[in-house]
Amino acid sequence: MKEFQIIELKEGVFERNNIEAHHLRMRLHEEKTFFLNLMGSPGAGKTTLLIKTIDTIKDEMKIAVMEADIDSDIDAAAISKTGVGVIQLHTGGMCHLDAEMTRQGIDGLGAEDADLIILENVGNLVCPAEFDTGATLNAMILSVPEGDDKPLKYPLMFRISDVLIISKIDALSVFDFDMDVCTHRVRDINPHIEIFSVSAKTGEGMDAWIDWLRNEVRSQRRE
Amino acid sequence: MKEFQIIELKEGVFERNNIEAHHLRMRLHEEKTFFLNLMGSPGAGKTTLLIKTIDTIKDEMKIAVMEADIDSDIDAAAISKTGVGVIQLHTGGMCHLDAEMTRQGIDGLGAEDADLIILENVGNLVCPAEFDTGATLNAMILSVPEGDDKPLKYPLMFRISDVLIISKIDALSVFDFDMDVCTHRVRDINPHIEIFSVSAKTGEGMDAWIDWLRNEVRSQRRE
Repeated sequence: MKEFQIIELKEGVFERNNIEAHHLRMRLHEEKTFFLNLMGSPGAGKTTLLIKTIDTIKDEMKIAVMEADIDSDIDAAAISKTGVGVIQLHTGGMCHLDAEMTRQGIDGLGAEDADLIILENVGNLVCPAEFDTGATLNAMILSVPEGDDKPLKYPLMFRISDVLIISKIDALSVFDFDMDVCTHRVRDINPHIEIFSVSAKTGEGMDAWIDWLRNEVRSQRRE
Repeated sequence: MKEFQIIELKEGVFERNNIEAHHLRMRLHEEKTFFLNLMGSPGAGKTTLLIKTIDTIKDEMKIAVMEADIDSDIDAAAISKTGVGVIQLHTGGMCHLDAEMTRQGIDGLGAEDADLIILENVGNLVCPAEFDTGATLNAMILSVPEGDDKPLKYPLMFRISDVLIISKIDALSVFDFDMDVCTHRVRDINPHIEIFSVSAKTGEGMDAWIDWLRNEVRSQRRE
């Protein structure tokens, strides 16, 4: 018997935006634009991974980026140094983007001829998982310092992600993070998820992740 | 001139729960219970800090803990090993607790004679900042691996916190984190915030944080 009680609190009400998301996904498919929704905790390393990824593939395809944050424009400023088109979205205090907000962003970005649009979602493992943005695929970053227990605590995020990038693996020696345990926990929730382990700092594992992304973008263009 | 545009998306609608929070705070004040709301990103080290803190002061006062998560009970299981009363709250997918959910938790906890009730809120830098739980004081943890730019991106969380604990300082040599820059950014937003730097792993800085907490709890009892 457990030594503590568990209370299930009443469910919150979330806006249904599946229809808008479907329409946006169809539109981008027709425009042959691959749209990646990148999610993760605050400080997981989303912007750093993006910069290294963009620098590697920006000569092969047209890329545009939407940076979503509650406040500040430091991530958009950092991305703009790569030379690709970027827009900063402020969510008005909201912890996620829904499909309609995403559409506003894509229209503001003016990237009809882009091969790849990336949304860096608000740093958060809860809300972004609950709102379909209309993305072609969902990617999430889990950084080593966050711990290997996160799939147990935020299962929906791991369930709705098509690809998981485990980041900051250069810090594995400093933290109590078991890669095998983490991978098993993730696959228990989502058996078909692609998993990459990378260090944007040392470059380890970056090639495999970028090869995967390149192939996904090319598939969308060929369809 | 900036090289990118900034779009302000429409504001979200948040439930007003200030009256419930006020009532809960008054009730706990009358019961001479100090209620601490502990917030931070996923993996910032909230549970580890709590366990070390509880182990140090549990013989001096009666403590009870509420663990809030989307799913799992691993944090409540970890806290229960300290021997203090603990309850796991599941938020039904929501990324925060409001005052009514908190009241349900406190009533379920059955800790009318507690000197200190601690709520470990959902791992998140956005939603918990927007809902007053009725806590006596708000505490937040920022871990070194998350980066010193977080006050710029999540200013509300830093504004509504009475105390900031910068955690995992044993990892400072591995990450690009400037303590002075971070502290200045925080004080620009919230000049009166208390700031402690700790490593729950090595114990560095823990005494100062625990002394502060002990004094706050004693003040509530004397009033």
